[in-house]
Amino acid sequence: MSPKITTELLKQLRQVMKSPKYVREPVQAYIVPSGDAHQSEYIAPCDCRRAFISGFDGSAGTAIVTEQHAAMWTDGRYFLQAAHQMDNNWTLMKMGLKDTPTQEDWLVSVLPEGSKVGVDPFIIPADQWKRMSKALRSAGHDLVPIKENLVDTIWTDCPQRPCKPLLTLDLSYTGVSWRDKIVALRSKMSERKVLWFVVTALDEVAWLFNLRGSDVEYNPVFFAYAVIGMNTIRLFIDGDRMMDPAVREHLQLDSTLEPEFKIQVMPYGSILSELQAVGASLSPKEKVWLSDKASYALTEAIPKAYRYLTPYTPICIAKAVKNGSETEGMRRAHIKDAVALCELFNWLEKEVVPKGTVTEIIAADKAEEFRSQQKDFVELSFATISSTGPNGAIIHYKPVPETNRTLSVNEIYLLDSGAQYKDGTTDVTRTMHFGTPSAYEKECFTYVLKGHIAVSAAIFPNGTKGHLLDSFARSALWDCGLDYLHGTGHGVGSFLNVHEGPCGISYKTFADEPLEAGMIVSDEPGYYEDGSFGIRIENVVLVIPAETKYNFKSRGSLTFEPLTLVPIQTKMIDVNLLTQKECNWVNDYHQKCREVIGAELERQGRHEALQWLIRETEPLIRVQ
Amino acid sequence: MSPKITTELLKQLRQVMKSPKYVREPVQAYIVPSGDAHQSEYIAPCDCRRAFISGFDGSAGTAIVTEQHAAMWTDGRYFLQAAHQMDNNWTLMKMGLKDTPTQEDWLVSVLPEGSKVGVDPFIIPADQWKRMSKALRSAGHDLVPIKENLVDTIWTDCPQRPCKPLLTLDLSYTGVSWRDKIVALRSKMSERKVLWFVVTALDEVAWLFNLRGSDVEYNPVFFAYAVIGMNTIRLFIDGDRMMDPAVREHLQLDSTLEPEFKIQVMPYGSILSELQAVGASLSPKEKVWLSDKASYALTEAIPKAYRYLTPYTPICIAKAVKNGSETEGMRRAHIKDAVALCELFNWLEKEVVPKGTVTEIIAADKAEEFRSQQKDFVELSFATISSTGPNGAIIHYKPVPETNRTLSVNEIYLLDSGAQYKDGTTDVTRTMHFGTPSAYEKECFTYVLKGHIAVSAAIFPNGTKGHLLDSFARSALWDCGLDYLHGTGHGVGSFLNVHEGPCGISYKTFADEPLEAGMIVSDEPGYYEDGSFGIRIENVVLVIPAETKYNFKSRGSLTFEPLTLVPIQTKMIDVNLLTQKECNWVNDYHQKCREVIGAELERQGRHEALQWLIRETEPLIRVQ
Repeated sequence: MSPKITTELLKQLRQVMKSPKYVREPVQAYIVPSGDAHQSEYIAPCDCRRAFISGFDGSAGTAIVTEQHAAMWTDGRYFLQAAHQMDNNWTLMKMGLKDTPTQEDWLVSVLPEGSKVGVDPFIIPADQWKRMSKALRSAGHDLVPIKENLVDTIWTDCPQRPCKPLLTLDLSYTGVSWRDKIVALRSKMSERKVLWFVVTALDEVAWLFNLRGSDVEYNPVFFAYAVIGMNTIRLFIDGDRMMDPAVREHLQLDSTLEPEFKIQVMPYGSILSELQAVGASLSPKEKVWLSDKASYALTEAIPKAYRYLTPYTPICIAKAVKNGSETEGMRRAHIKDAVALCELFNWLEKEVVPKGTVTEIIAADKAEEFRSQQKDFVELSFATISSTGPNGAIIHYKPVPETNRTLSVNEIYLLDSGAQYKDGTTDVTRTMHFGTPSAYEKECFTYVLKGHIAVSAAIFPNGTKGHLLDSFARSALWDCGLDYLHGTGHGVGSFLNVHEGPCGISYKTFADEPLEAGMIVSDEPGYYEDGSFGIRIENVVLVIPAETKYNFKSRGSLTFEPLTLVPIQTKMIDVNLLTQKECNWVNDYHQKCREVIGAELERQGRHEALQWLIRETEPLIRVQ
Repeated sequence: MSPKITTELLKQLRQVMKSPKYVREPVQAYIVPSGDAHQSEYIAPCDCRRAFISGFDGSAGTAIVTEQHAAMWTDGRYFLQAAHQMDNNWTLMKMGLKDTPTQEDWLVSVLPEGSKVGVDPFIIPADQWKRMSKALRSAGHDLVPIKENLVDTIWTDCPQRPCKPLLTLDLSYTGVSWRDKIVALRSKMSERKVLWFVVTALDEVAWLFNLRGSDVEYNPVFFAYAVIGMNTIRLFIDGDRMMDPAVREHLQLDSTLEPEFKIQVMPYGSILSELQAVGASLSPKEKVWLSDKASYALTEAIPKAYRYLTPYTPICIAKAVKNGSETEGMRRAHIKDAVALCELFNWLEKEVVPKGTVTEIIAADKAEEFRSQQKDFVELSFATISSTGPNGAIIHYKPVPETNRTLSVNEIYLLDSGAQYKDGTTDVTRTMHFGTPSAYEKECFTYVLKGHIAVSAAIFPNGTKGHLLDSFARSALWDCGLDYLHGTGHGVGSFLNVHEGPCGISYKTFADEPLEAGMIVSDEPGYYEDGSFGIRIENVVLVIPAETKYNFKSRGSLTFEPLTLVPIQTKMIDVNLLTQKECNWVNDYHQKCREVIGAELERQGRHEALQWLIRETEPLIRVQ
């Protein structure tokens, strides 16, 4: 990996920073955040501006270029990678280390008095703008929005913004029509006394209209905004995608409709001017609802007195609670996904043990191959983490030729993978050994399993927030002085983003919404030993009502039902460390895997994988 | 309980709200918060202004008086009490109910355009001022500070501000001299690059100078402020308390000292002008450190650019970590406290069972009597909660003649009590039955006990925040659909306030600081059945290092050691619901009670109580 030479690019960027063609007044610094105009976690190639200007293409990082300096802020996961990918023009700012200045402090320390700092107002979220602007102003500088993205002006071979065909989802997948979703949204708007709602997150647009796209890898979304009024629906989207008869039919663009359900299709780029027109039309007490993570540009289009900002939008919250059709779809997707993994693990056992020719990349490709054989498979839901031995300890590992390791009978293998099917999204991690695990490896695996079970079997009152369950996942590890440095679970979309809000299970205190029946999250404790191995056991679980002996204040209780039905390798379990209750949980889980996945393997005529499943789901016996 | 007639008082208040003698311009509304100038939890009678003006004397409530209205905001604990204590002049605003307006919204709805709303700037914390001021301003009104408290101007028989003698604590109690505390504080100030630190909380002043007072009931504090510079120490305190030779000697007021340790004593009332002088003397980049909960008046004395505000002060954090002398003192205090409770419970068994003449008040008084016989007893640390049967379900119950119930062999009795000794502060809850508890009562008690043990025996990494342990206390209750609606634990002072920051164990997400070895918190899960009974099991526990098999990232682990050593009534335990590990915990705990408290009962010649202790600490036997 040799660094990208950026001398010429930086020279060009510094020129446009002073060019009256792009800036009203010269800016002495320009901020290049990662991220797109929708605050997406995964971004399209045309939005990888920070990677283009610096060479550093990790998932998190912010570049700032001044007349003299170029600096890159990123976190511990990427110190090494950033150092490798960037040339000497760049200073690496290691976030999380004590002596690393914040972006604001650094700017104040290097800028001449009364400087202007530019940023693309579409890329920076409103709350970040506010913080940075305040810090700069108090030091005598100004943060200024620059409409045209300055990196784009010098990015001559910038890829086109993707504009791929759309997929329409009918009621059998979504359970609720887009019309009914609009009705429900408008009722939430009435409750909060807002007249307009602006949809800025890509998965929220996709969910609202029961459409899917493929503009961004792994996320079945498409570039669009929507503005919903009490009597109007405006969809901002580019390309000839609205010419597709199936889409026109789905959105009833050519039907005679009640005016409040008539969708006005507008160019993607006209969102700002349209929103400004809305902002200008408001009377006192009329409000516009936006996510507080919406871009500064869109937020500013609405005068401050008229804004109604919330951390989670009503769509985000409605989307998180899956209806019957979505839940059934997720079940089907997880059954198909389990079939693919049974095939894979059976194949691995046959290949790894005697031949030793399977690498991490080959295993990942094989997993994709088996998944792609399943009905309604669309794509993977994230880059497969296929890691053996020490690579397993790198939590966000993705095998590349430079690091690619061969699976063997001597090392633990960790596979974290998932797919998008038309009926649901999967995300599953299994950790296994193809030879004989050491007592220590089994011990650690068993603590992780105990944590997994503690969350999965937890019963808790309605209204409980996920972060209150996080310690259950760690307790067995903590007892022995062990831990893992990531959260325990995230929300999972229904044929949508594999990571979604507003709920999760984490020690980090974020403003998560309470868990409700119908929500779907992951349960994925782990243990990682640097340089040796990684262990993680992940199921996707559905929040369901729990039957309890009593019912305090008639609140009702909740628990989880695993949707993922893939055997947990019993060879890795030290049965004597399990309680009888935990042992029963494993046996019940495996019984269900055998019944449900076994029937599907049978149906698909996958007899060898079925034999593997039966072997792997033999009950554990605990010696008292 | 008949309501206080406030017609005349409100008339007078409305007059002074317009009187040029007190207000520059008339105010159309006046806010009367509960609380004093130090944001204390417990306040002196002279600070009970809200109770004086309204009649409502619960611990939480805010009164707002306009020309037409008088309204009182309080929470669910006090709806009934407030309704009883206030006359028809007042509207009760039930906080937490959906339709109850916030104070800001209500003000906006009732005030004429362009109104002024007055408040005492010494009583309102700066963060509350900011929020209210912003809301009022955006509706065209103004929040204005009124220096003279308007309630005080009409409170003709207002009690004097207490000014009781001080108690000096020597090194054997405090472990660290006040000089060394000043040195440590200045080092924290250097680290954060601040030149001044303003001590506003009463317990922080007391801790810093190793002094105690009795100006506020239950809290051994005295009215004072301090301003610490890098070379100066200013103590703002009234009365002839500084004439006491012991205090002069302790503070070395008459010694020749290095100038940076010379304490300048100034009048309590001069804090504002002195702080304004400090504020006016600052050069750019010179900062003054204040709690973000300090009063608006003091915060405003420092120009905004010079303020350094934190939720927890360095004194608050240092005070929470007890040193060896403090820990030993806390141990001694808890041994004495346990002796008193063994005497009490032995006495109760003798009195309640055959005679049935003991009321909640008699039991509380008897508890105080036994405590007062112990060495270095000062006072109670809070109003004793002595409650039987349905009264036990009222979480903040305090027996009064109207509610006073007689203890019997048919009801559960809950006693939550504690004391201030010169060497430490105690807080303990025991729940017991003098007859035969029902199977259901035992079941509930046992779930609470399991939660208590789960916290007490928890092992967790250094750096863990207390709120991550809260669910451990609830898990056994949750499994059966039960719960309790309060936090699990609070910090406890060392011969200081029984509730102190910055740590605690609660499902409420507050900005708690991580637990460290030496911190002391309570562990007090409960279960309450309205109209029937209350159960709570509370120990004060010390955070100590834990030995673990492994040591991930060399972080080290922590656990708790109970300081409270009072038997937990085994009659209330359903042994079959305990695991063997839990059963062992109870037996080990009781063994320690027997050894440590038994020896002290022996030493004090309290033979009958010793016999009771031995009976009550018989080991549990679990039938497998």
